[in-house]
Amino acid sequence: MYLYSNILGVFVFNQNLQIREKVLFSEQESREYLKILEKGEIPSQEKIFLEKFKSIKNLRLEPDDSVLSVINTLLMDFKDMFYERNLYLTKTQIRESVTDDLLIIQVSSSIMELGKSINLLTKRLREWYGYVLPEVEDKLQDNSAFSERVIEGYDRLRADFAVINGMGKKLSAEDMAEIKDFADSINLLQRQKESKELFLEKIMRKTCPNLTEVAGHLTGAKLLAIAGSLRNMVMMPASTIQLLGAEKALFRHMVTKSKSPKHGVIVEHPLLQRVSRQDKGKAARSLADKISLAVKVDYFKGNFIGDKLKAELEAKFR
Amino acid sequence: MYLYSNILGVFVFNQNLQIREKVLFSEQESREYLKILEKGEIPSQEKIFLEKFKSIKNLRLEPDDSVLSVINTLLMDFKDMFYERNLYLTKTQIRESVTDDLLIIQVSSSIMELGKSINLLTKRLREWYGYVLPEVEDKLQDNSAFSERVIEGYDRLRADFAVINGMGKKLSAEDMAEIKDFADSINLLQRQKESKELFLEKIMRKTCPNLTEVAGHLTGAKLLAIAGSLRNMVMMPASTIQLLGAEKALFRHMVTKSKSPKHGVIVEHPLLQRVSRQDKGKAARSLADKISLAVKVDYFKGNFIGDKLKAELEAKFR
Repeated sequence: MYLYSNILGVFVFNQNLQIREKVLFSEQESREYLKILEKGEIPSQEKIFLEKFKSIKNLRLEPDDSVLSVINTLLMDFKDMFYERNLYLTKTQIRESVTDDLLIIQVSSSIMELGKSINLLTKRLREWYGYVLPEVEDKLQDNSAFSERVIEGYDRLRADFAVINGMGKKLSAEDMAEIKDFADSINLLQRQKESKELFLEKIMRKTCPNLTEVAGHLTGAKLLAIAGSLRNMVMMPASTIQLLGAEKALFRHMVTKSKSPKHGVIVEHPLLQRVSRQDKGKAARSLADKISLAVKVDYFKGNFIGDKLKAELEAKFR
Repeated sequence: MYLYSNILGVFVFNQNLQIREKVLFSEQESREYLKILEKGEIPSQEKIFLEKFKSIKNLRLEPDDSVLSVINTLLMDFKDMFYERNLYLTKTQIRESVTDDLLIIQVSSSIMELGKSINLLTKRLREWYGYVLPEVEDKLQDNSAFSERVIEGYDRLRADFAVINGMGKKLSAEDMAEIKDFADSINLLQRQKESKELFLEKIMRKTCPNLTEVAGHLTGAKLLAIAGSLRNMVMMPASTIQLLGAEKALFRHMVTKSKSPKHGVIVEHPLLQRVSRQDKGKAARSLADKISLAVKVDYFKGNFIGDKLKAELEAKFR
């Protein structure tokens, strides 16, 4: 006798390779079956049969290839059902693969790309507006403020920066309106970026509270994006986390024996901004250690220890 | 006696190097003085003195260095006036350097950069929305349409593409709102780009009607942007115009003896899109010839011959 199971159910074949008994799975049971298989355990439905036929000595669980091909022929009756169930399971798995950390990565990447666009367009606005008020351009270093000031208008800007006998050209009202429109677009992107940053902080605090507390929501999300997923990050040693984002410098170091990088994106962390140059490497290592811990606690749904980890770090680099 | 002039006016010195007579310029006259000097002509005020003192044999126009240093000391009285006049003239020249073709270049560049930003952000939107409706993504190739369809909403899209048992994950209302907001921003950039394209066509038709007619306003403006100014473009041979935008391929050809490029940005022109592959080089050359002509007519404010040039081109490649 053979006991055979797949996503459709459990089948018992007799010596003549005819189906003697069978249990068909519901869609839900098919999913559970796959999950149990992944764990290397025996599905409960199979266990029932094993119990029932335990007196039979030659009940075989792993049919050899020749028997398997016969079994597959016998199961041709279930072909359509097999196809449908398979499609259902694949779709379900795809759906379930969209985890919260992947959504975080999309939000974080969208913030980075909004930032890139804002910079690109603000550079253009600076050059364009430089024709109108060249005196003001280098006094307004802040990109996010620049478009706002342009929107406020020429007269206001000229007054604020005391430009009396300027070298700018007074453009036509139509030209000025086009510049203002352009600044409006940049400003809207800026506001979109800010709103995405708020949203990112919210979902970061929900999905990975410890990572967020230790690394900050922006840096934490960047690390996630480079690692690809929370799961990937959990499996990384702290030294890898320390260098995430410094891949280029690392490979250059490996090829040309140039200086090895001390930190990747974690350099943006307030702690690393604060410490002196010679302490940066040490601080980066400590920070990466704590991040590595925080990520593991987040992944395995542990308690909130972010504040404790952060306090330890703060104490070390006072 | 010495006749000496600068932006302040014309000075006549006697043998003892004392100012004997002088005419001071108004600001307007200073500007005219510079323009006349550029042409290599003699300013009218200087001519008056030359006429007046023509009986004097040793009236010298170009004092040697030792005399010049004495003259400069004598003119120290005019130091402040000289500084102010110089500043005024420089500012005026800077102001006058902002010509219509430079404004066109800003508008054209802003369109290119809006396009780049739209592409970058739409790529992100596609990936993000791929979690929700993976079935739709590759059926909506058009980037500008994509954000609009996302804004129209999930239900509408699902109905239009007959997605019944999809593999997308139904995200929370909050997640969906963030995606829609992001799509809204892209859509606004798209509208800004379209409005800038309309404005570009308008100022192109006004500033360089012949170039616009022959090359089209988008391609024409790109050529202008690469050349740097209408003046630069006027001084280019047609063969250079033909290759504007293909600099990389050209230098690669010069260094590695790879195939020489046949055309730069003019490849976008409808004419070049229409002709067969083997005719592309020939068509590019003809088009560049006509563009070269059109640009010269525009720069020297000639009559409108764009329609004639275009008709000749059309006739050649029917």
